[in-house]
Amino acid sequence: MDPFFQVAIEEAQKGLLEGGIPIGSALVVDGKLRSRGHNHRVQKGSAILHAEMHCLEEAGRLTPREYRNSVLYTTLSPCDMCSGTALLYKIPKIVIGENQTFQGPESYLRKRGVELVILDDAECIKLMDNFIAAHPQLWNEDIGVI
Amino acid sequence: MDPFFQVAIEEAQKGLLEGGIPIGSALVVDGKLRSRGHNHRVQKGSAILHAEMHCLEEAGRLTPREYRNSVLYTTLSPCDMCSGTALLYKIPKIVIGENQTFQGPESYLRKRGVELVILDDAECIKLMDNFIAAHPQLWNEDIGVI
Repeated sequence: MDPFFQVAIEEAQKGLLEGGIPIGSALVVDGKLRSRGHNHRVQKGSAILHAEMHCLEEAGRLTPREYRNSVLYTTLSPCDMCSGTALLYKIPKIVIGENQTFQGPESYLRKRGVELVILDDAECIKLMDNFIAAHPQLWNEDIGVI
Repeated sequence: MDPFFQVAIEEAQKGLLEGGIPIGSALVVDGKLRSRGHNHRVQKGSAILHAEMHCLEEAGRLTPREYRNSVLYTTLSPCDMCSGTALLYKIPKIVIGENQTFQGPESYLRKRGVELVILDDAECIKLMDNFIAAHPQLWNEDIGVI
């Protein structure tokens, strides 16, 4: 398995162990792991720290050139917020664990020039299936669904 | 002047006094001020705390119903990240101070059903014009431009 994707899965599992939403992310810049992150809605009472956002925040202030030479890994298809952030920084490629339990604006991302790789990873699907079944209201809050 | 928009301007001015990027925001839920925020790139070394993001984080975890009864105020046209966040939470209306010094994906927001009110506020334009002239590189970093 791609070792950077493995980092994203480890982050998702870490979030689950903390009692949080099991979504993880990793940012690779110039071929090297720059940062890792996971969803912090529960842990920090955060409305904005989705896994990808936490990962990008952990990376700190990067230059536009660094973002353009990066790959964002995430265990789940990025939502409107996280997709918008990738567009802001012109991150050219996102590797996505799965898009079966939730799908963000993938066609819009592609239209704006972002390369998406969908892995259809069984472990990611299982993590989300189990979580959504156990905590449907928390999951709906995370994606703004009534 | 709309008192909630005045809050957003005060936040922008506060950011400027802190040595930061002068963009401010306010979130109104059910007709009442819920939170306020400003850009924290400089102050916290943050890649994600644009004014709107800081404001939404300060609001804490809201219910989908609360977001649907909210208005987001911002002194500057929201970028891809902040626009995406409004879409995630289905915030129905954004009041924007100005879109002359920078313009986010406004047509996309409208297409997705968000009402935008552009105020063309002279104070907001002046704040950004002065800041961009003094700190062009910092401004480019904030909006991902090389």
